[in-house]
Amino acid sequence: MKQELRIPQATTKRLPLYYRFLQNLANEGKRRISSQELSEAMKIDSATIRRDFSYFGALGKKGYGYDVLYLLEFFRQTLDQDDSANVALIGVGNLGNAFLKYNFQKNHNTKIVVAFDTKAPLEGHEVNGIPVYHPDRLEEMYVKYNAEMAILTVSSRSAQEVTNRLANINAKGILNFTPVRLNVPETMKVMNIDLSVELEALIYLIRNS
Amino acid sequence: MKQELRIPQATTKRLPLYYRFLQNLANEGKRRISSQELSEAMKIDSATIRRDFSYFGALGKKGYGYDVLYLLEFFRQTLDQDDSANVALIGVGNLGNAFLKYNFQKNHNTKIVVAFDTKAPLEGHEVNGIPVYHPDRLEEMYVKYNAEMAILTVSSRSAQEVTNRLANINAKGILNFTPVRLNVPETMKVMNIDLSVELEALIYLIRNS
Repeated sequence: MKQELRIPQATTKRLPLYYRFLQNLANEGKRRISSQELSEAMKIDSATIRRDFSYFGALGKKGYGYDVLYLLEFFRQTLDQDDSANVALIGVGNLGNAFLKYNFQKNHNTKIVVAFDTKAPLEGHEVNGIPVYHPDRLEEMYVKYNAEMAILTVSSRSAQEVTNRLANINAKGILNFTPVRLNVPETMKVMNIDLSVELEALIYLIRNS
Repeated sequence: MKQELRIPQATTKRLPLYYRFLQNLANEGKRRISSQELSEAMKIDSATIRRDFSYFGALGKKGYGYDVLYLLEFFRQTLDQDDSANVALIGVGNLGNAFLKYNFQKNHNTKIVVAFDTKAPLEGHEVNGIPVYHPDRLEEMYVKYNAEMAILTVSSRSAQEVTNRLANINAKGILNFTPVRLNVPETMKVMNIDLSVELEALIYLIRNS
């Protein structure tokens, strides 16, 4: 059932969460779980869980719940967990630097393989074992290191220009930490994470409840 | 119309975005905008914009569009932009350090007023002009600095314990950067930002389109 294109982004964002929880459950020896139990553990209401799962067909049985190992395998394949993703980090300021040091490879199938920063020398240098090049070599090195997507932690000023350059080499996706709403071709996916917006939304929630 | 409690979280997260765009539009001298124009500028589909606005009553007129200054004032009041929020940062590792240096005060009505880190001395020291204390003094200093919410950038291991301590002093909200799903009392709001999850969701989008 190739229905992926119709899955809402909110559901997409929960898929890795489901996978992580199922891993924990499997590690604890749990073999069967109800949507109610899953709901309590994940703090997501059970109607949402059932709706999310329904996009992928019938994953559970009424009165039985979900088979943990079956679900785990299903999400592993769906999320392509066997095939790791090479990521380019563009902009090594405060936030970019935190990502370089943290990296994502520890627990996940994603890895920052190359970074770019205006302060780096043309010939490149290493930070935390990751090569950092001057943005003049963006296209060359993005392709050479086989990057599949970019984390964008540049200034607002250069966000769209860098995006255009990435679009020109058919980069497939951007995790955008700038407040700029990027113009991209339809073939390119963007996920926006705006930390100030998240903080302001939290303030709104606090003050209006 | 006090309907705020029924507003979905996805809408809540867009409110600060609307506000920011309306500020830009007003600064450019724009006085009237259609939901279609707003949609193109913000990369949010116009049906979503109309539905979001509908939670707040009729903010536009059919065939006229929206009055920019009226909307701006409406969102300014709704988001309480005149009343700045004091934020405590808990955990000054790589990510926490990036937040300390960036701070949010530059463009927004939020400000990190105090931070906590296990490596800080009991008597505290300053980083980037912000006092950083040992977590032993969390409750004392959270109250003293009049913090309204906390940014949580501690290790997964200590996330729930710190949350319990915050709950005990009636902290109102947490912007949670740990992968832990926090148990909180109903009076406490949590917004989760899990960077690995966002990255994995982007990979999924890229590979399934």
